[in-house]
Amino acid sequence: MFNYETVKAKDVEDSWASNVKVRWLITKDMGAPNFAMRLFEVTPGGFSPLHTHPWEHEVFILEGEGVLFDGETATPFKRNDVVFVAPDEWHQFKNAGKQTLKFLCLIPHPKK
Amino acid sequence: MFNYETVKAKDVEDSWASNVKVRWLITKDMGAPNFAMRLFEVTPGGFSPLHTHPWEHEVFILEGEGVLFDGETATPFKRNDVVFVAPDEWHQFKNAGKQTLKFLCLIPHPKK
Repeated sequence: MFNYETVKAKDVEDSWASNVKVRWLITKDMGAPNFAMRLFEVTPGGFSPLHTHPWEHEVFILEGEGVLFDGETATPFKRNDVVFVAPDEWHQFKNAGKQTLKFLCLIPHPKK
Repeated sequence: MFNYETVKAKDVEDSWASNVKVRWLITKDMGAPNFAMRLFEVTPGGFSPLHTHPWEHEVFILEGEGVLFDGETATPFKRNDVVFVAPDEWHQFKNAGKQTLKFLCLIPHPKK
């Protein structure tokens, strides 16, 4: 076991993301057979891309506050909230607060 | 999305567990296709059963401190630690602190 901060935070290299870093905490390479645990950090004003894909997100908000935007509606969330993004749902996470937004986001490993 | 406290905490009904409650936050019934998110709360002195099973646990410690016991060795953990329990590993979570231990524990849905 390890503190999450011992895992390097890497910039999310997506031209439609802004000020988002990710730490891959539990991965397939580590022996996880089914799904991965990542921790995202978004500084104030930052956001992930508005996008969609055929897999789900299971999210737990650890620190801060933000909004989930589906292309039409922005729904606020904050620390200790749970977010389920179903497969093929459009989604974008934005930091709407004054501190760093941190959340866990788990995804299934890509299907072969 | 919802605050985790809006989901009822149920007693873990296992005769070898003590003072453990679980909230099922994201489930198959909710539409999650692959894995479930649960939040466990263990009061001081409480513990989950020492057991093993052919599926993994992906764990994030939200509050408190404790030890992970594998039948031989007790390894301490605390808030912000990440724990991966591989399939077929013996494991028991114990609260070794003075406050409630809270952690997320994600598991794959049972295979058919």
